[in-house]
Amino acid sequence: MSGGRFAITAPRVVTCDPARARPGDALGVVEDGAILVEDGVIVAVGPRAEVLARLDSAGGGGGGGGGGEEKVRVFAAPGVITPGLVDAHTHAPWMGSRDAEYAVRLAGGDYEAIAAAGGGIVATMRAVRTASVEAIQATLAARLRRMAALGVTTVEAKSGYGLDEASERRQLDAVAEAGRDPSLPRVVPTYLALHAVPPEAAGDREAYARVVGERWLPAMAAAGLCRYVDAYVDRSAFSVAQARPVLEKARALGLGVRLHAGQFADVGAVEFAAELGAASADHLEVVGPAGIAAMGAAGVAAVLLPVASFTLRQAPPPVDALRAAGVPLVVASDANPGTAPTESLPLAMAFGARLYGLTVPEVILGATREAARTLGLAEVTGALRGGLQADLVAWDLPHENALIQPWGAPRTTAVVRGGTVLAGGFDAVPSEG
Amino acid sequence: MSGGRFAITAPRVVTCDPARARPGDALGVVEDGAILVEDGVIVAVGPRAEVLARLDSAGGGGGGGGGGEEKVRVFAAPGVITPGLVDAHTHAPWMGSRDAEYAVRLAGGDYEAIAAAGGGIVATMRAVRTASVEAIQATLAARLRRMAALGVTTVEAKSGYGLDEASERRQLDAVAEAGRDPSLPRVVPTYLALHAVPPEAAGDREAYARVVGERWLPAMAAAGLCRYVDAYVDRSAFSVAQARPVLEKARALGLGVRLHAGQFADVGAVEFAAELGAASADHLEVVGPAGIAAMGAAGVAAVLLPVASFTLRQAPPPVDALRAAGVPLVVASDANPGTAPTESLPLAMAFGARLYGLTVPEVILGATREAARTLGLAEVTGALRGGLQADLVAWDLPHENALIQPWGAPRTTAVVRGGTVLAGGFDAVPSEG
Ligand SMILES: [Zn+2]
Ligand SMILES: [Zn+2]
Repeated sequence: MSGGRFAITAPRVVTCDPARARPGDALGVVEDGAILVEDGVIVAVGPRAEVLARLDSAGGGGGGGGGGEEKVRVFAAPGVITPGLVDAHTHAPWMGSRDAEYAVRLAGGDYEAIAAAGGGIVATMRAVRTASVEAIQATLAARLRRMAALGVTTVEAKSGYGLDEASERRQLDAVAEAGRDPSLPRVVPTYLALHAVPPEAAGDREAYARVVGERWLPAMAAAGLCRYVDAYVDRSAFSVAQARPVLEKARALGLGVRLHAGQFADVGAVEFAAELGAASADHLEVVGPAGIAAMGAAGVAAVLLPVASFTLRQAPPPVDALRAAGVPLVVASDANPGTAPTESLPLAMAFGARLYGLTVPEVILGATREAARTLGLAEVTGALRGGLQADLVAWDLPHENALIQPWGAPRTTAVVRGGTVLAGGFDAVPSEG
Repeated sequence: MSGGRFAITAPRVVTCDPARARPGDALGVVEDGAILVEDGVIVAVGPRAEVLARLDSAGGGGGGGGGGEEKVRVFAAPGVITPGLVDAHTHAPWMGSRDAEYAVRLAGGDYEAIAAAGGGIVATMRAVRTASVEAIQATLAARLRRMAALGVTTVEAKSGYGLDEASERRQLDAVAEAGRDPSLPRVVPTYLALHAVPPEAAGDREAYARVVGERWLPAMAAAGLCRYVDAYVDRSAFSVAQARPVLEKARALGLGVRLHAGQFADVGAVEFAAELGAASADHLEVVGPAGIAAMGAAGVAAVLLPVASFTLRQAPPPVDALRAAGVPLVVASDANPGTAPTESLPLAMAFGARLYGLTVPEVILGATREAARTLGLAEVTGALRGGLQADLVAWDLPHENALIQPWGAPRTTAVVRGGTVLAGGFDAVPSEG
């Protein structure tokens, strides 16, 4: 790929650029399109003839450069090109395996029963606590590479399995380390401050939340280890009252907020998210009209996690009501070892279409532009338009409708982040240049 | 990997060998086990100390060879090893894309409506008819390689999209060509003789079936292009009476028979399969007690296709009744461009567990030993025991329970067929030898 300039042409360029959206074409598709990239940034998107003409006039020895004979390569992708996928909710830096509970769950044991029996999150906590930062980093990098092969170029990554300051910090240090590696997807670090209480807290959620809010959170923020703070506010998790001081502190520290809300019960988490001006409320299998209205009014995005509800055999969230309230819809993998043992955002997309009734444009925008927006990356990634990073995926599929089928295998031919190939490549693709 | 001898050790070797099955361990797991391979064939499986001791006594300069100092390499796999997966029902040599109908189906248009409107199978027929055998072969090989990366070492591959003699034959020629490539999964060719009627038959199913049975089928058989013959016997497909002459001819020609049966309606297809001594009846979403009893009595395997019923939002087949009748249960991908747009047997396995209520051993045996048995390969593959081909998968997962989660990404570290690496490899795995 090299630095410098290159162009990619494709029969269908799915821009996800609102400026190109038309009635009947919410995705702003350019047929027979091209993308021009310069130093990792998109400089032009449009009909191929138009973009390549720019190349002729400005290319070759143009620009302020050395006036050399630099040949601008033009790659011809065979199918559809989309923005790089953005996975807005993952617990990616997990360690160990929860295989012992899979058979229990398949036999009908529920999430809360598994957790009450000492399985669940605490099992993963033990694996994280005994892992070095290097071990976490290696596991995370391998996982991010598998995600990249599936077309994902940006991954939100939550801590939340350490449950003590040092272990949470090792998780976030591993995420930070991944963030310095341009050969991996871009990561967005979230401190999942309130996930569960560790055994040593002896069930005292209030005391645990106090320590988190007063000591650990300020330390994570001071070290620059997180962009967002998350809390799991639900029936068997933390109450709004317990979470409030932590999340208000997060806001005071200038950090964004996301909430695990309404997965099992409507305990007011969604209204709380709206009150805080949270970036997103995630899950929402159980949320009432008041919460939905509050989200709509406050512009809180709904991050839908269909792999988790599939695993837990839950009914879908109230997608029609969310849509009617104008809530931005995002689809994410929830990649975690317990309730969403997956690494595949494309699988979550297929489930979002089939199980949640999302339309094809909703699914694709929810895994690109809307996902980027809820991560504060609207001016960085999530669409194909001038000025954004050259994060894009060439698929071996001819149409965006085919992207949201449950192929179960990577269907990418090239996955590019900031102009750098993360997976596949254009070698297999005929070059026109 | 080279030829000759090598051994692989693993913390868990899931043999799927009935001789090792125990109460509570239907999969015959050997903990801290090893597998010894010689010239592509398994020569020993068992506890690691036992197998490696054999190596010391018989290895080194042993055997009738040149008496050299040949060092037998011992690879240490990090997680679980299983037999290579066997996908017993695929339409793998398809061409083109059915993306135009995906949005229709997601919006509620049903399979029969799509077919009646000229979409569905006929769309794929057009793509196959205009493809050369080389083009079909290239597409098939790429698909088989993606399947191999997911852990699949044997793939049943049906024709059925040509719908004229020459085009069906090109599909089967492509399968035969794949069958000569040891770097691909082993293929089992099935002539899907009655899938749909092509437009030129003007809806005359009876006349079409007559030509198929009297002319095309004998020609395919004479050319050695198929091991099985399949027919789609259902409400909107062929009747038992229409299919009977074709399938009886198949039996007379010494070929095995498989049926698409009971996908939408119980039209007696399953009883017919039992009467014919079919190897399998596939789908079975709609099948009554008489059919189930007939299958049990005749030893016809049930090939379950959960990705298709997921796509079509159908209720699961009567798994409890099939199990109670002693019907062998197989899980397959049904990989096809319309109703099961997937290439992933692991995804079908995850769906089989979650959506059909199959147990972990049922799913794993149904994708290994039972699948091999219904393909007539019980003495070739599907288990880890002496005398079978060295078809095996090393997973980056520590336990077989984790195999049937919907990871959506390849979780294999090495996929081996007959001693040859198809995907991944043991380079990444510490070698003990
Ligand atoms: Zn989560
Ligand atoms: Zn089929």
